[in-house]
Amino acid sequence: MPLFASDNVTAVCPDVMSAIQNANIGTAPSYGDDDWTKRLKARLSDLFECEVVVFPTLCGTSCNALALASITPPFGTIYCHQLAHINTDECNAPEFYTGGAKLIPLPGSNGKLSAKGLQDAIIGKGDVHHSQPSTVSLTQSSESGTLYRVDEIQAITMVARHHGLKVHMDGARIANAMSALAVTPAEMTWKAGIDVLSLGGTKNGCMGAEALVFFNKDDAQMTPFLHKRSGQLLSKMRFVSAQLLAYLSDDLWLKNAAHANAMAERLSAGLKTINGVELAYPTEANEVFVRLPRIAIEELERAGFDLNEDEVVRFVCAWDTRDKDVDKLLSIVEHATST
Amino acid sequence: MPLFASDNVTAVCPDVMSAIQNANIGTAPSYGDDDWTKRLKARLSDLFECEVVVFPTLCGTSCNALALASITPPFGTIYCHQLAHINTDECNAPEFYTGGAKLIPLPGSNGKLSAKGLQDAIIGKGDVHHSQPSTVSLTQSSESGTLYRVDEIQAITMVARHHGLKVHMDGARIANAMSALAVTPAEMTWKAGIDVLSLGGTKNGCMGAEALVFFNKDDAQMTPFLHKRSGQLLSKMRFVSAQLLAYLSDDLWLKNAAHANAMAERLSAGLKTINGVELAYPTEANEVFVRLPRIAIEELERAGFDLNEDEVVRFVCAWDTRDKDVDKLLSIVEHATST
Amino acid sequence: MPLFASDNVTAVCPDVMSAIQNANIGTAPSYGDDDWTKRLKARLSDLFECEVVVFPTLCGTSCNALALASITPPFGTIYCHQLAHINTDECNAPEFYTGGAKLIPLPGSNGKLSAKGLQDAIIGKGDVHHSQPSTVSLTQSSESGTLYRVDEIQAITMVARHHGLKVHMDGARIANAMSALAVTPAEMTWKAGIDVLSLGGTKNGCMGAEALVFFNKDDAQMTPFLHKRSGQLLSKMRFVSAQLLAYLSDDLWLKNAAHANAMAERLSAGLKTINGVELAYPTEANEVFVRLPRIAIEELERAGFDLNEDEVVRFVCAWDTRDKDVDKLLSIVEHATST
Amino acid sequence: MPLFASDNVTAVCPDVMSAIQNANIGTAPSYGDDDWTKRLKARLSDLFECEVVVFPTLCGTSCNALALASITPPFGTIYCHQLAHINTDECNAPEFYTGGAKLIPLPGSNGKLSAKGLQDAIIGKGDVHHSQPSTVSLTQSSESGTLYRVDEIQAITMVARHHGLKVHMDGARIANAMSALAVTPAEMTWKAGIDVLSLGGTKNGCMGAEALVFFNKDDAQMTPFLHKRSGQLLSKMRFVSAQLLAYLSDDLWLKNAAHANAMAERLSAGLKTINGVELAYPTEANEVFVRLPRIAIEELERAGFDLNEDEVVRFVCAWDTRDKDVDKLLSIVEHATST
Repeated sequence: MPLFASDNVTAVCPDVMSAIQNANIGTAPSYGDDDWTKRLKARLSDLFECEVVVFPTLCGTSCNALALASITPPFGTIYCHQLAHINTDECNAPEFYTGGAKLIPLPGSNGKLSAKGLQDAIIGKGDVHHSQPSTVSLTQSSESGTLYRVDEIQAITMVARHHGLKVHMDGARIANAMSALAVTPAEMTWKAGIDVLSLGGTKNGCMGAEALVFFNKDDAQMTPFLHKRSGQLLSKMRFVSAQLLAYLSDDLWLKNAAHANAMAERLSAGLKTINGVELAYPTEANEVFVRLPRIAIEELERAGFDLNEDEVVRFVCAWDTRDKDVDKLLSIVEHATST
Repeated sequence: MPLFASDNVTAVCPDVMSAIQNANIGTAPSYGDDDWTKRLKARLSDLFECEVVVFPTLCGTSCNALALASITPPFGTIYCHQLAHINTDECNAPEFYTGGAKLIPLPGSNGKLSAKGLQDAIIGKGDVHHSQPSTVSLTQSSESGTLYRVDEIQAITMVARHHGLKVHMDGARIANAMSALAVTPAEMTWKAGIDVLSLGGTKNGCMGAEALVFFNKDDAQMTPFLHKRSGQLLSKMRFVSAQLLAYLSDDLWLKNAAHANAMAERLSAGLKTINGVELAYPTEANEVFVRLPRIAIEELERAGFDLNEDEVVRFVCAWDTRDKDVDKLLSIVEHATST
Repeated sequence: MPLFASDNVTAVCPDVMSAIQNANIGTAPSYGDDDWTKRLKARLSDLFECEVVVFPTLCGTSCNALALASITPPFGTIYCHQLAHINTDECNAPEFYTGGAKLIPLPGSNGKLSAKGLQDAIIGKGDVHHSQPSTVSLTQSSESGTLYRVDEIQAITMVARHHGLKVHMDGARIANAMSALAVTPAEMTWKAGIDVLSLGGTKNGCMGAEALVFFNKDDAQMTPFLHKRSGQLLSKMRFVSAQLLAYLSDDLWLKNAAHANAMAERLSAGLKTINGVELAYPTEANEVFVRLPRIAIEELERAGFDLNEDEVVRFVCAWDTRDKDVDKLLSIVEHATST
Repeated sequence: MPLFASDNVTAVCPDVMSAIQNANIGTAPSYGDDDWTKRLKARLSDLFECEVVVFPTLCGTSCNALALASITPPFGTIYCHQLAHINTDECNAPEFYTGGAKLIPLPGSNGKLSAKGLQDAIIGKGDVHHSQPSTVSLTQSSESGTLYRVDEIQAITMVARHHGLKVHMDGARIANAMSALAVTPAEMTWKAGIDVLSLGGTKNGCMGAEALVFFNKDDAQMTPFLHKRSGQLLSKMRFVSAQLLAYLSDDLWLKNAAHANAMAERLSAGLKTINGVELAYPTEANEVFVRLPRIAIEELERAGFDLNEDEVVRFVCAWDTRDKDVDKLLSIVEHATST
């Protein structure tokens, strides 16, 4: 039972599925020359209050790798948190797409980079022996389920700007962050110094759709070709764009995220009251990280939950998590620890 | 009006769309550990009468590039027809995925490689100065809408085998070939010496789904990692596999292809009767290549057809091409040439 | 006996060897911060009558590949003659260094590209499906031992310029061309539209030294890093630069080349008078290409000559070729054909 | 004055320079088919008491990168010390040559990896999301001037072997280690579990020559082609091989290293007696790392020494370091600190 195992085990939400079906009307120009893709681009420019350059992609890995390859030379350095998805879960996709750039993993409390930590790590600019400081990548919400406040983002991007680095935001779960923090998309991103965003849809109700969003046209000059030659430019792109269009309309992305966040809050609040259970990180979005007694882990596995075998167990809530799923989990943990 | 412009402008056929919707039932394991993907693998092994290794991918470009990267070292040569999609339409994706292999484009009548032409081109084996002969890629049906007979395939693969080369079949339109030639999938592929197949679905009724099929397990040892790091391993893979599963069940792929072929035959037969129209290649699958009088081209464009501006005009028929579309096209050409 | 087999089988000429020894005086800054490298850069700027950017490299393959990688994106096309060294003899080094660019080999009489042939081949600019036309590479003197006249170079670079392409000259044997044509280094290169030059030294008296010369500073922005990470930035660079400095001083490069050319002329003139011997290409620099009767080939091999087994036999003269070597070769051929 | 700045600022030692001159006798087969290269291979097999596969290269960066690319797939992980040259000083050459592998930098006291630290770091084998554990690289002598004892090497290679990893030794300064530890070349390398060695010559008396040495033939299957296409296969290879041949004959490499080590010992012993001076690492080979009072740094710079501006100052002794150079350095530091 993959419930809570990740938000990528979920189904497609009804509105997105309808949008896919509704896009299935006869022939349409291929490779993104269709109306859905055009409307998606307009929608994103509207949403971010500036003219953005958009590439629909199919998964987070390729979206991140394309973003990084667009702004990092093969001899460049990409600074990221040591837990970043690009560092630990993409089988060297960033190295592949960039043609051999180097990721420098940095520590940082609660899964977040600090401006100070970044500042100290940037060395070697202009020295031909050294990988060239080029890019910072931060994840919002983070791999630890925590959030960067806008001023934290700004502090990081100011360090980056000072050293001539570009900044990428891995927003696989940006909707959860948007929903939790009372800021606009623009405030969360380009107004805070972000140059390029991977805007995730898949984990929050889409079938397989992420938007690669550039806030500066110049950063995207090579991207159309990288997009194509990486196999991310689908001929029937309308079905990807239609997903994102529905997802970003009528606040669907925020509604889905708000629900996931609320479920995580419910779960987190419940777990905190249980003896022997300890949160590993504060619960700020849709992910809950806890240290559980061994007996609780065993009981959950006996009940069919699919847990990552680590010191810290992660529970991910999603757009379709139900109260009763949360409550069932809580009751199993409670029961296990009370015996 | 993109009618006839390509088979990738078409909609998704009803059975595939239903399969997508039917796969949307609650949570499922991600990254291909789902039931649909497992059943797809079983289905393909059954279809090809041998145990195959399968990777669902999202488009033809990535499917081809992954196939080639699995069997070609960075210092290798890939021999292909000069019109091959991998050579002309993938923005160096094969070079990218292989880490810098070289494509050697070969001439060949009717869009097909010849065993003799291949034999003459294979040079430099073992010479460190020379790109190393590694791979042959042939396209079935070809980029000129023609077909390799089984004995033609065998003649090519025997040359390849003799020189220690692997053979890839780009089967973006293999269903059209299967439908036109009275052979089994096994006879068309591994029994004729093919090592790895890109089995296309997108152009023939799917939304975005191709199966990368290896006939020898050893050739696929690196592929799981290449698949992941290229961004082709979708988290919600079930929706890709479900497409292919429906596509390869109940002969859907062959039925769709048979219809497309029949429409192409109708169009080809009609065009042949018109004065001043000349077929550029024999019509053997779902594509018709003709030389049209200028006046006919202009009339078609005035009528809204989207033609590739070349000496030779290509008309592609698909699973959803209608008699009346064909007839309309014919009547415009007829009218234009008779005045 | 590798005599005539190539000009890379030769020894180091005395002045270059002396320069190496003379550079061996105690410690010196490493990685090109030494005086020899600085003087080399000044010397080349002087020689070419403009401020050039220079990178000493160790062999022609890396010099060419660095040049191409500096001006060609991974999704780019490099147009070259089908016999070009970069296409046939560098084991995909250009593809490696560029991160997967595509070489398009073009035909062309006497081993030379034609402006018309190039013009016809440039397609797909701006089309994401197509490798992007980026670079032209021409070889002076050519792989067939022939020479581009300045107006021929200009005709090609004008086509390139018209399409926004950069132009690389592979000058592994540029000294031979310089010596044969009464033009200045500037006229042969940047004044004729060349952007970057591989200036060869190894084949003409050096030990292992080529100069990568950029005529536009902007083209070399990434090159310092590419140079380092390709393993071409030697710590004791002074010994490479000292070679080139001696080579380019006191007309040594031109004197060595003039001698090689004269020997080729002597050989060519002699061969032309022999019955059954036919020049494959006009002899314009230091290489002679002939069709020899089988009996002559056998006699030469019996006498210890190391011939490339091809239809056309290549004889390369060098800075150290002696009259008597030429005469011996001629007498063997004469004797063989007269019996 | 680059004295002590590195061992790569030194001249070529007389015997190596003589060998270069002696190799300059007329024509010789190119690209390593010469007698010097053949004798070098025999010499190395003899030295290491097993049949080795050898590729002469020109610098440490390319030697290391070729070694790593031979045994690491593009989706692989290379574990190394965080101070390793491959991690900090090669501008992503390992990432370039491997096609995008990932370096995982590990901490470790005195610049050395520990078996325990390595063991803990190896994760993700077989997990497609994770870079695949492939290779360990250790540096002998280390970047901190310290030495791995044979049992320390064995402990590391046993962990590697247990996980199916290959082990590379960066031996840019292996002669210094060989001289300091009373073991044979075989005991230091393959008998202790090393698979491939970068055997350095440049820093210890050569002009530009390193030997890439494989102890298992199978690991070198792709290397001839990687060697060529990286631009490391010189046409006049005899001049590289001649250097190494002289270097490895008559114990020249060990004699040069012993001298350098003795000078470092003299320097280290002297510095230890000075108030306020503290060794950062034990002096075990030819490098001395110290914390110096600011005043001493300033005095040294005033006297013309070229110091790396870091907390810890590195002094490197070499084959040509003189007693009086050491003594001068000591007297400046002494004088500065005593005032």
